[in-house]
Amino acid sequence: MSLLLKEIRHNPLLWLLAFVPVVFAAEKLKPEAYTLLFVLSVLAIVPLAALLSHATESVAAKTGDAVGGLLNATLGNLTELVIALTALRAGQYMLVKASIAGAIVTNTLFMLGASFLLGGLRHHAQEYNRVSARLQAGLLFLATIAMLAPSALAEADATARVAATHKLSVGLAVALIATYGLGMLFSLRTHREFFGSVKHADAGEEPWPIGLALAVLAGVTVLVALVSEVFVESVQQAAKVFGLTPAFVGFIVVALVGAAAEMASAFSAARKDRLDMSVGIALGSASQIALFVAPVLVLLSYVIGPTPMDLQFWPAAVSMMLVATISATLVTNSGRSAWFVGVLLLMVYLIFAMTLYLLPPRAS
Amino acid sequence: MSLLLKEIRHNPLLWLLAFVPVVFAAEKLKPEAYTLLFVLSVLAIVPLAALLSHATESVAAKTGDAVGGLLNATLGNLTELVIALTALRAGQYMLVKASIAGAIVTNTLFMLGASFLLGGLRHHAQEYNRVSARLQAGLLFLATIAMLAPSALAEADATARVAATHKLSVGLAVALIATYGLGMLFSLRTHREFFGSVKHADAGEEPWPIGLALAVLAGVTVLVALVSEVFVESVQQAAKVFGLTPAFVGFIVVALVGAAAEMASAFSAARKDRLDMSVGIALGSASQIALFVAPVLVLLSYVIGPTPMDLQFWPAAVSMMLVATISATLVTNSGRSAWFVGVLLLMVYLIFAMTLYLLPPRAS
Amino acid sequence: MSLLLKEIRHNPLLWLLAFVPVVFAAEKLKPEAYTLLFVLSVLAIVPLAALLSHATESVAAKTGDAVGGLLNATLGNLTELVIALTALRAGQYMLVKASIAGAIVTNTLFMLGASFLLGGLRHHAQEYNRVSARLQAGLLFLATIAMLAPSALAEADATARVAATHKLSVGLAVALIATYGLGMLFSLRTHREFFGSVKHADAGEEPWPIGLALAVLAGVTVLVALVSEVFVESVQQAAKVFGLTPAFVGFIVVALVGAAAEMASAFSAARKDRLDMSVGIALGSASQIALFVAPVLVLLSYVIGPTPMDLQFWPAAVSMMLVATISATLVTNSGRSAWFVGVLLLMVYLIFAMTLYLLPPRAS
Repeated sequence: MSLLLKEIRHNPLLWLLAFVPVVFAAEKLKPEAYTLLFVLSVLAIVPLAALLSHATESVAAKTGDAVGGLLNATLGNLTELVIALTALRAGQYMLVKASIAGAIVTNTLFMLGASFLLGGLRHHAQEYNRVSARLQAGLLFLATIAMLAPSALAEADATARVAATHKLSVGLAVALIATYGLGMLFSLRTHREFFGSVKHADAGEEPWPIGLALAVLAGVTVLVALVSEVFVESVQQAAKVFGLTPAFVGFIVVALVGAAAEMASAFSAARKDRLDMSVGIALGSASQIALFVAPVLVLLSYVIGPTPMDLQFWPAAVSMMLVATISATLVTNSGRSAWFVGVLLLMVYLIFAMTLYLLPPRAS
Repeated sequence: MSLLLKEIRHNPLLWLLAFVPVVFAAEKLKPEAYTLLFVLSVLAIVPLAALLSHATESVAAKTGDAVGGLLNATLGNLTELVIALTALRAGQYMLVKASIAGAIVTNTLFMLGASFLLGGLRHHAQEYNRVSARLQAGLLFLATIAMLAPSALAEADATARVAATHKLSVGLAVALIATYGLGMLFSLRTHREFFGSVKHADAGEEPWPIGLALAVLAGVTVLVALVSEVFVESVQQAAKVFGLTPAFVGFIVVALVGAAAEMASAFSAARKDRLDMSVGIALGSASQIALFVAPVLVLLSYVIGPTPMDLQFWPAAVSMMLVATISATLVTNSGRSAWFVGVLLLMVYLIFAMTLYLLPPRAS
Repeated sequence: MSLLLKEIRHNPLLWLLAFVPVVFAAEKLKPEAYTLLFVLSVLAIVPLAALLSHATESVAAKTGDAVGGLLNATLGNLTELVIALTALRAGQYMLVKASIAGAIVTNTLFMLGASFLLGGLRHHAQEYNRVSARLQAGLLFLATIAMLAPSALAEADATARVAATHKLSVGLAVALIATYGLGMLFSLRTHREFFGSVKHADAGEEPWPIGLALAVLAGVTVLVALVSEVFVESVQQAAKVFGLTPAFVGFIVVALVGAAAEMASAFSAARKDRLDMSVGIALGSASQIALFVAPVLVLLSYVIGPTPMDLQFWPAAVSMMLVATISATLVTNSGRSAWFVGVLLLMVYLIFAMTLYLLPPRAS
């Protein structure tokens, strides 16, 4: 416990934890103050995400690579998963899908691009393991194709299409999860020597003891779930006040909030010239969401959602995921980076953000 | 002749030749039993394709690379060509195009992916000549763009569009065949030293004497043509019985049947760590179909078809060819392979197969 | 002045300067003879473009790389810019956009492809700096995405869409110009050692003295502007006479005319085995147009156009730019070239040209 308090004292990001009780108080006192609740819940989620991330890495460090990889898959994107589950239970499938697509695009373009830029501003040229980047890019490419597939059914008439889309989505979800599992088997077991220097679990901080890590994991997950509920309820109303389109909120705001903690790790690693870790966090997180979180949400929607959710994304979202994947593939092809590579990725993200910001509400 | 019988005794695949007379008997006795005829014709085509493939390679081995290359182009995909010609004469252009697109996608994803997987299960990491893979991928990319071009005319009104589409298709067909010819000149004449280790003609079996090879070639071609007629007539009816969409039949069933023999060669080469041959057969066959068989069918439709056939494919088919080409390009970029690379390609193929299987019939 | 006359005597292309006065005479005498005026203006623009190009390079050679790069950006594509400005003032936005897209596609496919082919016919295999090619391809990819973005707004209803498209176009234009500036900072300042052998300014001819260069620059710019006015006025009428679609004229004819001089330099460099320069001219020119000329035209349309111009291109144009960019990326990936690589690029261009030639007029 004292270790936790020491960590909080040294990490200014964690001071935001003070907002966690404030959110719950505000929600009790002013349940209609959506804008306030939105801002408070964002401020509260960020430090909770940082704690979750550190706790997961501490557990992973203890359990070895194979179990650690699985843990990273299930817990590394826990914030995104909890937010998405809360939206799923509320039947807000538009928000679920926007946050999935947004998380993929934000990790691939913004997190990777900013890592390259920040690393490149300090180091003239940086190298990293391109085998690993290529595997992640390949997984992302597969996931994008899976999300493109349901649109092929669009020409059919309505009744047949809905049934076929749901069947296809379940099949695609199973295929993606299987591929993700085989990919872990490949990179952590049969061919681990090719993925040498990518150490996702080692974030440069000393790991916590396993007891503390598990306790933090349990406690913080509950807190994130509770705060996420406030966030999901308030975000659409708040968006109207700020004049933001729902697409912009789901793609950009939710994605940046959910990935805040991982970004802190990725950027800090890039500035220490440990670009392997930055690339691993950014692309690994994106492929986790695409091949694990998204398919799990589709399957879970049959259990906890009001109606089944399919894997059909609106065309612009699939296009953005495709462009993000191709950009990452082209950029990581050489295994070398300099600051301008980061600028290129960030500019693609900026183009997407501007487009979503200006998207008239009815079009989303 | 005794050589032929010896070959048949040693190759269990060729025992299926027994089904050839059975097909013709069944068609005489029960011309309405479409499902039976479909199953029998599939069982009969597979060994005939294997014989054709071996005979072609024997002729190619005798005539040297330049003529051998041309022979491979015209004869290597003879099964696909005969099936397509039979469908062309029957005016079944939907089936022709589906089998062309299906053959390209099946060779690029399934044959290449299964070769990588089967080779990778036995060998930890495999290397192959990426210059050759890159040339084939480039040719496939060009063909995909050609098949995409007619859709640019779609906005015009009906009459002008049909005329323009036919003119464009003839132009594209001539351009593709010319590129294919120049590609052979490049890889077999002017720059053959770059394509060193790809030996498509050497399938690991001893070649037949030229007389036997030519006789088999002539005899088997006639048999394939006759069986294909049964196959084309029965496939659509049988598909209804099995609940298969026409798109699934054309893309998956016909493509797998047509390429059965080449697959046997490609898989066996991959397990012997001769990945150059596997990649050569898979991508070489795909580019032959795209740049030679398909354009020739367009041009032939003016002679033997009831109406001219254009080179316009439905959007989903072009998308699949594009995705298959890009996948092959990305995957062969490094010239190295391991089992998971095969899994990725097979998963893309599985996504396509699932989508086509669920495609409501009216949508195709 | 005698230097200029000597240059004209030695360069047969410049003998076409005789057509400059002929154009103005013809326009005075026969203002309705559109076909004649079109042919004459094409013949007059080509040598003027060559003079402009040489004058720009002479100025750039004197001012050093940083300023020279900026000069190349503003002046290297001066012919295209002047033609586009003339069309912009006339409110012919369709022609402006077609000439932008056409210039990008023509430089990327035709100029690069013909350089590879011509170089490859004389030299067995050629090498060039792929870092530079990769940067240009990355910039082109970004620009293509920017031109794709406005189509995401297409689903909105008309009024909201127009306003959003214009806001987005201005934002995209600023982002592209900023990226272009940062790209120059990267390649000319912070990481110039990576871009060693690309010497765009050194076209193999001796530079002029700065006074002559500036005088030619000023005088010829005025002449190009005047001839362009004749060209823009006559091109659409002449196209009808020749049976050419407006899309073909904008994409192919205007683009080839505008780039004639640069092509002469690129082809001559390729035959001298200086492929770095050819690639630099072809891709550098394409990215200049995409990231500098096009955005500047959008911003200028608010000042000099009858109404603001947006950055929305019709889908076929964006597809062509995307295919051209991907082709260039794949082709320049290895940093090596042989004649068949040029054939592949030229075939893609031929496919585009055939499609545009057959595009029914109403569809454009």
